[in-house]
Amino acid sequence: MLGEVEVEVYAEVKPTESEVKVKRAVLNIIELDELEVIDVNGVKYIHGKARGLSYLSRIRDLIRRERIRDTARDLLNHSVVGDEVVINVNKQAAYVGVLSFAMGEVESPLGPITIRIKSSNPQQLIMWLTSG
Amino acid sequence: MLGEVEVEVYAEVKPTESEVKVKRAVLNIIELDELEVIDVNGVKYIHGKARGLSYLSRIRDLIRRERIRDTARDLLNHSVVGDEVVINVNKQAAYVGVLSFAMGEVESPLGPITIRIKSSNPQQLIMWLTSG
Repeated sequence: MLGEVEVEVYAEVKPTESEVKVKRAVLNIIELDELEVIDVNGVKYIHGKARGLSYLSRIRDLIRRERIRDTARDLLNHSVVGDEVVINVNKQAAYVGVLSFAMGEVESPLGPITIRIKSSNPQQLIMWLTSG
Repeated sequence: MLGEVEVEVYAEVKPTESEVKVKRAVLNIIELDELEVIDVNGVKYIHGKARGLSYLSRIRDLIRRERIRDTARDLLNHSVVGDEVVINVNKQAAYVGVLSFAMGEVESPLGPITIRIKSSNPQQLIMWLTSG
């Protein structure tokens, strides 16, 4: 079975953005209990942290519902860095409840939602996210 | 002298943006009496229109204050389309009171503020904006 899973989320809040709306975008993808606003060198971020696989249920549901399991599995397998899976999700799509993986600035011009998932077994985590 | 001058402004409001903040960004650059929110094929824009040179005083002041007159003149001369001068300004910079001309999506990822200035004499208009 999967051991301890740690989830961490970052989403930049650009000057003209609404903190509430960026939080909503994040929560549409990943339902954390608490999100805080942090300031990193004058740049605002919505930041959240949690432990446990249950926090990833929503993203799992979205992958299943949008029928992007194969694509997602492929992409997630390429997103493993050490013991972490690091993915970027389009913030604007997330706000309207759609999961869209973002490859870079062009695909997520307001800055993406970055999700880092630490796990003792990233491959098994990816299988859990993209099957069932 | 310069004849009738018509000013029109557009700024997209992305889903996670605040209408109030985008309006503030626009008003920092160009002080219009009224800004409305319009919907173009499901995309929201802040839109404003006015007649008269006085509405361009703020942008003129910013060009002078930021000492970018030569650059601005050059850029504006390249922005003449028929009887209009069409310029794009970085929305995030505008929100913090800074005038920064935006060349494309990369320099203004949330969509720029687009300003269209119609005038019988665009060259003279540009001289007015970038001198004095």
